[in-house]
This record gives sequence, structure tokens and C-alpha cells, in this order.
Amino acid sequence: MANERLIYLPLGGAGEIGMNAYVYGWGKPGEERLILVDLGVTFPDMDGSPGVDLIMPDISWLRERKDRLEAIFVTHAHEDHVGAVGHLWDELGAPVHARAFTAYHARAKLEEQGHPDRVVQVASAWPEQVQAGPFTVGFLPVSHSIPESSALVIDTPAGRLVHTGDFKIDLTPVVGEPFDRALWEDVAKDGVKALVCDSTNVFSHHPGRSESTLGPELEKLVESAPGMVVATTFASNVARVKTLAEAGERAGRSICLLGRAMRRMIEAGVETGVLRDFPKVIAPEDVPSLPRENVMLLVTGSQGERRAASAQLANGKYQGISLREGDMFLFSSKTIPGNERGVIRIMNQFSEMGVDVVDDHDGLYHVSGHANRPDLEAMHEIVRPEMLIPMHGEHRHLREHARLGASRRIRSEIVVNGMMMDLTGEVPVVADYVETGRTYLDGNVQIGALDGIVRNRIRMALNGHVTVTLIIDEEGDPLGEPWCELHGLAETGRSRAPLVDVLEEDLSQFVGRASRKVMADDDKLEQEFKKVVRRTALDEIGKKPEVTVIVSRLV
Amino acid sequence: MANERLIYLPLGGAGEIGMNAYVYGWGKPGEERLILVDLGVTFPDMDGSPGVDLIMPDISWLRERKDRLEAIFVTHAHEDHVGAVGHLWDELGAPVHARAFTAYHARAKLEEQGHPDRVVQVASAWPEQVQAGPFTVGFLPVSHSIPESSALVIDTPAGRLVHTGDFKIDLTPVVGEPFDRALWEDVAKDGVKALVCDSTNVFSHHPGRSESTLGPELEKLVESAPGMVVATTFASNVARVKTLAEAGERAGRSICLLGRAMRRMIEAGVETGVLRDFPKVIAPEDVPSLPRENVMLLVTGSQGERRAASAQLANGKYQGISLREGDMFLFSSKTIPGNERGVIRIMNQFSEMGVDVVDDHDGLYHVSGHANRPDLEAMHEIVRPEMLIPMHGEHRHLREHARLGASRRIRSEIVVNGMMMDLTGEVPVVADYVETGRTYLDGNVQIGALDGIVRNRIRMALNGHVTVTLIIDEEGDPLGEPWCELHGLAETGRSRAPLVDVLEEDLSQFVGRASRKVMADDDKLEQEFKKVVRRTALDEIGKKPEVTVIVSRLV
Repeated sequence: MANERLIYLPLGGAGEIGMNAYVYGWGKPGEERLILVDLGVTFPDMDGSPGVDLIMPDISWLRERKDRLEAIFVTHAHEDHVGAVGHLWDELGAPVHARAFTAYHARAKLEEQGHPDRVVQVASAWPEQVQAGPFTVGFLPVSHSIPESSALVIDTPAGRLVHTGDFKIDLTPVVGEPFDRALWEDVAKDGVKALVCDSTNVFSHHPGRSESTLGPELEKLVESAPGMVVATTFASNVARVKTLAEAGERAGRSICLLGRAMRRMIEAGVETGVLRDFPKVIAPEDVPSLPRENVMLLVTGSQGERRAASAQLANGKYQGISLREGDMFLFSSKTIPGNERGVIRIMNQFSEMGVDVVDDHDGLYHVSGHANRPDLEAMHEIVRPEMLIPMHGEHRHLREHARLGASRRIRSEIVVNGMMMDLTGEVPVVADYVETGRTYLDGNVQIGALDGIVRNRIRMALNGHVTVTLIIDEEGDPLGEPWCELHGLAETGRSRAPLVDVLEEDLSQFVGRASRKVMADDDKLEQEFKKVVRRTALDEIGKKPEVTVIVSRLV
Repeated sequence: MANERLIYLPLGGAGEIGMNAYVYGWGKPGEERLILVDLGVTFPDMDGSPGVDLIMPDISWLRERKDRLEAIFVTHAHEDHVGAVGHLWDELGAPVHARAFTAYHARAKLEEQGHPDRVVQVASAWPEQVQAGPFTVGFLPVSHSIPESSALVIDTPAGRLVHTGDFKIDLTPVVGEPFDRALWEDVAKDGVKALVCDSTNVFSHHPGRSESTLGPELEKLVESAPGMVVATTFASNVARVKTLAEAGERAGRSICLLGRAMRRMIEAGVETGVLRDFPKVIAPEDVPSLPRENVMLLVTGSQGERRAASAQLANGKYQGISLREGDMFLFSSKTIPGNERGVIRIMNQFSEMGVDVVDDHDGLYHVSGHANRPDLEAMHEIVRPEMLIPMHGEHRHLREHARLGASRRIRSEIVVNGMMMDLTGEVPVVADYVETGRTYLDGNVQIGALDGIVRNRIRMALNGHVTVTLIIDEEGDPLGEPWCELHGLAETGRSRAPLVDVLEEDLSQFVGRASRKVMADDDKLEQEFKKVVRRTALDEIGKKPEVTVIVSRLV
């Protein structure tokens, strides 16, 4: 019988930014005991997933093996690492381990979905460890853009693995633990079999900057502003929110948090003890009575999200507060690719109001939470792994990171979602290919990305939709004429007559000519009606609409 | 009676990037003789205009006054300046003036739409001038990213105007005329009433770079490549295409153009005489027989367009050519905001093939065609206008450009689409607000952006669609049960029964309970059916679909 083996299988995050979900296993082939690292989401867009609420990894493979799943470990509280825990936990049923701040959020997500929050167990930082079947797992603090981010030190019978989670190397992170190089070196000193490492910023060649470099610049900016100052950033970047609040406080401004996520994150920080000395905040209803130059708002919506506080302020009033000429709006953030249009829309709305918009185009008001290339090299140097497996990145990031590793003579392997790697030996070997993909949360239902449901929506959006109805009587003769309803189509076309009339006329003519055999065959009738509608529409308006045909037969 | 006046009225381009269309007029209020400068398009996206083919300015105001329109002047051949000439010309009917290269494209567009190409008159460069009613207009050469770009010198009874069109200040533009400062100074020396000036790059603080700086870097890159080299850029950037082709030629590579736009632009350049000494090109079918290291392809699709050559190569084969490990793909371009997802998709597809993707993130392989802030200041300095009117830009660009002008003590005015300005006096005054907007070309029909047609498509894409049919007999009783057809909706929801069954069951129950009065009233029935469907769907799947109700009454 085959020997026991160590496997690694990404179900999400390896081939994309977002939706992280990585499986590790140890045991005989097909009997490995498993752990899952992270269970995140990614966000839909109108191009590929209109109407969808959230995108999650397809965890069918793991669900079918849930009896072998020992535990779920969550590295940090960003949505792309913890966001699917509430929606997918009942399909897996394993205990969830996370540090306090992350656990706070995981619990909230489980509660929202009606699951017991006691499945979340709060873990302490390294050197404490959690036993999970054949794995012994420790949470090794690492700096990132959210409190209590952790790498996982995963001890296995085949050796030690280090799974970095998202990270940067920040010695002065404002909130939370500075990167502790000595501690990391100590963890690595007896050898690390594999470093599974964040890849998102591999194309950024400049050294990463510390969160703490922003304070002085932000203070200067806020002090220079004559009116109200409004700043937005990711609410989860608690350090940034604190830095912004302190800059406001030093400039003699009262701080007000706007947007649910902003208030929740600060509460979570205070409750879990990671955030101390946060400036006193005032309620939104107290803002209008203060001089504008004595107020600073910290608001959600750095990505231009339509319902967030920033977009609401750009539209007019939010919670009784409105901006005006002489105020300043600061994006202390970067725009995630794909979100440009939304952010630009807000910028222009503020411009129309006379509000000065400041962003990070000079690199003064934002730093990334991820390791740039020099920091990745530093990490390789510290851990000195036998093998490097780039994770969390699009294919181009994984490939570039693997090249970087190889250039430093580290055995490096591109492993994408669905590739099961056997890490037992000196050389990683592909053990299997597993079907993976995306599951959409649509309303409150899960649908598969390839079910055709969303594809149909996209088609209706691109082509418009025509419904054709016809009643056929007991003798098989049409009762009245075919009837069309149009959605999302021009009302008149080439012939200047209403499109609906032209369609109905052409369908009537078809019915007049159709044989009894065709009239008796619903499938054939549907096919022919679709042809007539598409041909006529193409001729009239230059488009081929989606067509639904409903034939009702009286019996 | 009121005196004659000089008016300026942007119908597109002032409040957005793209879709340029600017009206100038001279005469008694309401009787001004008019000219139109540029008639461009902008491009649709899935977020706001799914299924739409092109977006054009709403020119209703001008159409209603076409008897007063003397001429249309086109500054250069970019789609956002000339793209709507073919589609909208018959609504205006005026002669079109442009320089040879631009005229070549304007004629092609008119021909495509079946209009006579003789309406396009080829203009010579300044100092020649064209008379158009009270206006005398000259095409003053200016550097940009397409050949024969021109500013317009518009002499009016109220003084000289300079309308820059899109421009940069490039003394060594590779193809076409270098920026001729002395000539510009001469044009401006007797005073310029208003400078109407490109604003797109006002937020770029560094000095602009010349097209000619790219050659040496591109040569180095192409020479270093071991396999096939493929480069993409805007086809209309003839200078860039030439620089790329020459870099390939020097590296001993045969050049092949892929994509219709790429071949057409080079043809246009050669035919109109603006392009000389373009390297010899080979046909796509000759590529496979050559060693890969001896080939360079120049392809369309720098913005990730799905049907362009770059996307086709990323998908697999195009015209018998496919890329593989060791080849290089170069984006000699910048990604226009909103196109990131498409470009990134292609990059990852190439990464999966093992193709090295190079882009301009280090600023080596692309320069902008627009004037950065220092070049705008230089333009202000050269022209020394009495007033500055920023054009071509989003609101934030216009505002920043006006601030820049004001900081240099030039009277500067933010004028957005639909604001008619009276420029006659020393101070520009708002004369009127005109309704403007966007017209969609949808298939081959024009529809208004606010007609609700596209909004309906977006709603179907976000919410899915349900068609309900019910037949009511001669007595007013339902004949059979209500029937549902679903599009773009999950098949099952909370109750685990097919959604269509649950909907039909709830509708049946409603029909069973409904009064004869409701059953006799089509509007009421439609309203109630919609309510039932939305309530049930919300309960089952958490979504409120769009609903179409078709009640057929037998008579």
C-alpha cells in the first residue's frame, strides 16, 4: 500500500487575487487528514457576474471529504480570507481557529447565517500551537493592513511548512505587532520544507514603506485644509484609521466615523484589545453644529462602492451632513483594478461641488499592505525554504514569483487552483487535478458560475429580450395572432414602424404559412418563432434578441 | 435689438474624456451662424450601457438649427473626435473640413453609412484658412499621438480663438510635424481672445516626453527577446507603430501587422503621404515558416478588446499564428481606466502559455499623447490668451485646469456640456443652458441614454426575469393555471422545490382567491401577479426579479 504523503491543494486564491482557500493534507493517498487555510470571497462585477452578491470558491471536493477535515484556520479578517466562513461553514462543519480580532469577525459572520459562534476557537500567537489531526499549527504574527494578521507555521510528519498569509515586512505598523525578524528566523532555523507565500505585489520593485511613514504627511495635509476634511480608507485598516484620526485630532478637529463597517471595525479593535488610545469620536448628528474646520470625517467607500458613505456624500447628504466648496476629500487608499469607474465618478461629483479631492498619486497618503519584491526576497532569505510555492495572485503573479524564487536558487513551483501537489519528497509532484471553480451567492442561494443562469442574464443585458406567446385551440389552429413583449429593445427601427408590430406581423405571416405538422410540434414552433424574431430584429434594429416562446394549447 | 455675440457651447467632451463636440457661433442671439468642432464617440461598458455599440453626443440642439450650421471641422482622426461623423452627418448636412489624413478617415466613415464622401474637404495647414460664414478657420499643426493633428485658429469678428484639439508639445514626434513654437507664437502675437484647451493630463505633473525617446528602449527590449515578439499599441499611433517596426527590423525581424485597424492605419498613412519609409511587412501566412526569433508582430487590442488580435492570440490561434513559451508580448500603451479587467485577463492568459508579458509600468515603452501640466503651462505662456476655457476632460480635469490658469492670472472658466457661454466681452458670461446628453448607437438604431431601454436591460441582468402567462376564457374564468418562464434565476431556493413550481403554485392560489373584479381588470391583475412573483422569489431565493405578465383573453 502506498505510503503516507503531504499534499497541498489550493481551491481558491492561486490564479486570482481574492477568494483564498488552501487545503493541506497528510496520510495515505485518498485518506489524508485535511486542514483548510482561509475561506474567503471575491467580489462580483457587471461584466462577468451581474446581480451576484458574492463569489466564493467551489468547495465541492472538500465537502465530499468533510469527514476528513480536522479544522479551518483563518490567517486574518479580510473578506478575501474570512468572507465565506459564514456562508460555507455548514458544508464543512469543522472547528475554526483564529486569533482574537479575526475570531471576532468570523463569529459575526457565523452568527449572521444562524450558525453557532462557539465553533470559532480563539488561538494565541506563536509559540502556542493547535493540534489538528497530524498537523500542529501555530499563528506566527506578521504585519499586514489589518490587526493580528498571522502566518501559519504548519508542522507535519514531513516537515515544517510556513504559509505566510497576506503580509508585508513592517517594523513600525502603528497598530499591532511589528515584524519580528528574530522570531521568524528562530521558527525557520531548523529548516522549512516549503514556504507558501503571498505573491500579490511581486511586480512592485520598490521597497515597501511602513504604515508609520504616513502620519506626518497626513498631519500636514489635514492642517492645511480650510474646511471640513473627509478621508476614506478600508475600514479594516485599523492602523490607517487611527493615523487619520490622530492627524485630525492634532489639527484640532473632532472625529466622526461614517459607515457601518467603519464603526464596527473600530469597535472590534477596541473590544479585542488590539486598538488602544483611539481618539474620541463624535456622533454624526453633532457634526452640523460644529465649525467645518473643526471636523474630520472618516468614511467607508474607498473603492467607490455605490452604497457606502463616500458615494452617499458625493450624491448629496448623508446622515444630515453634506460637503461644499472649500471642503477636502482624501482617498487614503489605492483603487483596486476594476473599481476605477466608481472611484472616478465620485471624484467628479465632488469636483462639481467644489470639494478638493486628494488621492495617493504622489505616494504620500497610502502604503500597501503586501510585500513588494524586495520584501519577498527578504522573506525567502529569512525562511530559506527547500521549496517555494507562490500563492495569492493571478497567474502572472505566481509565475513571476516562481521566477524570482528560481533566480535565488530556490526550487519554485507554480501551483494553481485545483492542482494537488505532493510535497512529501524533495521535489513537488503533481498528484492530481481537482475540479474547482466559483460558486456565486445570488440573493440567498448558491449557484454555480457555469450553471448558465448568470450567462442568461448577461445575454439579456447585451441583446434584449422578446417574449412571444401564441394560443392554439383544440383543433390545432392558432387562436388569434402571436403576441410579442419587448424588453430592453429600441421601439422602432429601419421601417419606422413600431418593432413590436413588425415582429408580430412577421410571426403572423409565418403562422399563416406553417404546416399542420409544424403547428403541432411545440419544439419546432419555438425554433421557428425564434428564427423569425431574430431575423426580423436584425433587419430592423441590427440586434439579435434573446427570445422566449410560450405556446399555450387549449385541450 | 440685441447686438451680435460670440458663443461657445460644448455638446460633448466638456465633463468627460471622449465624445468631443464643440459649437461656436457668431450673430444676433438666436440667429448665430454656427460651426461644429469635432464629432466624436465614446465607448460603452457593461456597467452603464450593456449591449450598446457606441455612445455619441446628443446633438438635438444643433440638429434643430442645422440651417445655421456653416461647417464641421475635425481636428484629428481619433474616434473620440471623428467617430460620430458617419452616424450623425445626415442630421447636420454641413461640409466637413479636415486635413488629408483625418479626411481619409472621415470619408471612410461617411462611406460606411452610405453618405457621399465628397462632403469632406481636405484642408491645408496654416497659414491657409477656410471661410465658414463669419468664421475664418485655419488648421495649425500640433503634435499628438496620431498624424496631422491640428489646433484650430478661429478668427471671429470678436477676435481670434485658439482651439487646441488634443495635443502635446513634442519637438521630435517621429512621424509628422514637430511642435513649431515660433509658428504658434506668431499666430498668437496680435492677441488671442480665448484659448480653448485640452485638459486630460492636467494631473500629470512631470514634463511630457517625446515619442522619439522610446526607440532606443524598444530596440534594446526587442533585441533581448529569444522568441517571437508581439507588440500592441493604438493602431492610430502611427509613429509608435513605425518605431516598433523599426526596432524589429534592426533586430533582424520580419514585421507582420495583425488586425484590420493596424493594417488600415498604416495604409492611410502611406496613402496620404504622412508615413514614409515604413519597414516592409510580411503576410500572416508567411509567419509560421520563419524562425520565431526572426518575427515581430504588431497587433491591435492594447485595451484588451475581446475581438482584437491580442485577445485572439491570448485565446489560442489567430490567422494560423500561436504564441508559446519563450515568446514576448509587449503592451506599448497605457490602459484606459475601465479597461483594466480586459487587459489583465489577456496578461494572465499569456502567462499561462509561458509568454513573457512586458508593460509600461517602468515608463520605458509608452509616452502619452497629451500635454502634461508643464506643457499646459507652456501653452498658456505661448498663447497668452485673454481667457482660458479648459475643454476635453472630466469635471475634475476642467476644474484643475481652470485653477492652473487662474494661478497664472489668466481669466479661467469651467464650462461643461450644455453651458452656452457668451465670449463677446472681456468676461465670459453664461448665455443659456442647453439640454445635452448621450445618444446610444444600439445595433443600427439610435436610442436616448435616458429612454429606459438600456435601464431595462441592466435590471434584467441584475434581477433576472420572470414571464407569467394566463389565459382567461370568454366567461372571465382562468383557463388552466398561470404559467411562469424564468430567465437568469436560480432553479431552486429555500424550500428546495423548483422555483418555477413554487411561483406557479402561489400564483394559482392567488387566482383561486381573486375576485371577479380583479380578474376582469388586466392592469390590476398584472400588478398583483408582479407582487406575488416578487414576494415569493424574495422569500425563496432572496431576489426580486423583473416580471412580465401576459394575460390572454379569449373572446
